[in-house]
Amino acid sequence: MIVVKAGGGKGLDMDAVCSDVAELVRQGEKVVLVHGGSHETNVISEQLGHPPRFVTSVSGHSSRYTDRETLEIFAMVVAGKINKLLVEQLQKLGVNAVGLCGVDGRLLEGQRKDTLRIVENGRTKVLRGDYSGVIERVNVGLLKLLLDAGYVPVIAPLAISYEGDAVNVDGDRAAAAIGAALQAEKVIVLTNVPGLLRDVADESTLIPRIPLAQAESYLDRYAQGRMKKKILGAVEAMREGVRCVIIADGRVEHPLQQALAGQGTVIEP
Amino acid sequence: MIVVKAGGGKGLDMDAVCSDVAELVRQGEKVVLVHGGSHETNVISEQLGHPPRFVTSVSGHSSRYTDRETLEIFAMVVAGKINKLLVEQLQKLGVNAVGLCGVDGRLLEGQRKDTLRIVENGRTKVLRGDYSGVIERVNVGLLKLLLDAGYVPVIAPLAISYEGDAVNVDGDRAAAAIGAALQAEKVIVLTNVPGLLRDVADESTLIPRIPLAQAESYLDRYAQGRMKKKILGAVEAMREGVRCVIIADGRVEHPLQQALAGQGTVIEP
Repeated sequence: MIVVKAGGGKGLDMDAVCSDVAELVRQGEKVVLVHGGSHETNVISEQLGHPPRFVTSVSGHSSRYTDRETLEIFAMVVAGKINKLLVEQLQKLGVNAVGLCGVDGRLLEGQRKDTLRIVENGRTKVLRGDYSGVIERVNVGLLKLLLDAGYVPVIAPLAISYEGDAVNVDGDRAAAAIGAALQAEKVIVLTNVPGLLRDVADESTLIPRIPLAQAESYLDRYAQGRMKKKILGAVEAMREGVRCVIIADGRVEHPLQQALAGQGTVIEP
Repeated sequence: MIVVKAGGGKGLDMDAVCSDVAELVRQGEKVVLVHGGSHETNVISEQLGHPPRFVTSVSGHSSRYTDRETLEIFAMVVAGKINKLLVEQLQKLGVNAVGLCGVDGRLLEGQRKDTLRIVENGRTKVLRGDYSGVIERVNVGLLKLLLDAGYVPVIAPLAISYEGDAVNVDGDRAAAAIGAALQAEKVIVLTNVPGLLRDVADESTLIPRIPLAQAESYLDRYAQGRMKKKILGAVEAMREGVRCVIIADGRVEHPLQQALAGQGTVIEP
């Protein structure tokens, strides 16, 4: 069982990802594909006259403020356009894909974080009405039902809160949570850099291997921005039973084959 | 087993539909909900600067020209926004809904009609690049897998062509095809009129019962516009084993309960 996370940012070659997924499926591998969609959500939000709003939390992280209108645009783009066009592309390659998001069958459940404490113009403010959350439970029954029947699940990063609200979740953490719940052999996170770099400005400074026990010190020393969530997700997934997590380049030819051949940053037990 | 079609046009009370679906599910009934989305697709197409284009076929029918961009907007709106927000609403009512479209697991398959012969300014023209189709096969395996596991499928009207292209299909005909494939006891089509009317301008002229054998003569004499597809779908569904089709008012309180109590136009064997 391999859980693949791909897409969301710019620059990934999703044709190459789908073609590699099809190759793995042909070889008899069970695969779950988790995708993102922030970049396209931003583009369509702008076009619809509701531009994305990014805020800085009191702890210094930048994140999207997901008001209800943004949540509905996010659902439309990630669970509609991106998810269904990926399913279409995989079907053309002979893969019997089924697209879902975490709201379907309560696949991904968690706490909604409806209040954000942010810093704006040097002042702390409280922003209410946010629709984002962190996954706490993966209801694997539905995934196993589909996988055992030969389908390839394609998952959009929306979850459902305990109160039944759809919430925006991080795709990297979603892939990690799904990998852990399925006790996947590998979780492969494809991104638009070669992996974790010692120097973000220099792609030749790739860190090829990280022992799990030292992952947090690497996280503190080298990970910036979105890479932090990828490493954090990797640590969580491996503590819950995933054998290895590979963070690799999604811009290359055969990105999955290359990741499986050891390219990228491999986090090992 | 009851297949319900609701939504697509204006005026339907989807809160009432969801609440009635929840009531049926609580009573132990198996339900599949099929929805539409043309009206909202038109609104969002306008907002995105790609307004809908309606054409008149040589046989005199008006239909949407679905170029690739329109297909992607349609997928986004019906399989993303409408489908997932319905699933969210049902989940809040305790219904374990799972949203799919016909591309998922090749649920709804058919021929893509990529060329339209239309009449424009009195002249016949050929319009290529259309992404619409008519459902020829329902792959019931996936639906039964979900129904048997206790999920309530919520289906968006996209199908997949034999070549693997996503295509726009009619929601009423989709519900009829699904009803037939599942050998449903009843197919209930909720709309924004009380049923088939003798005089479209007068809601008091409702035709309460139509024997299947006479359905086609009623179709020719009274059905106009979209009502034709509803009656046509009903006839097809009943010829393939559905016991009865009810076309009823979706604007009222408890629309499903009222339809099941015999309101609307009932097409019977």
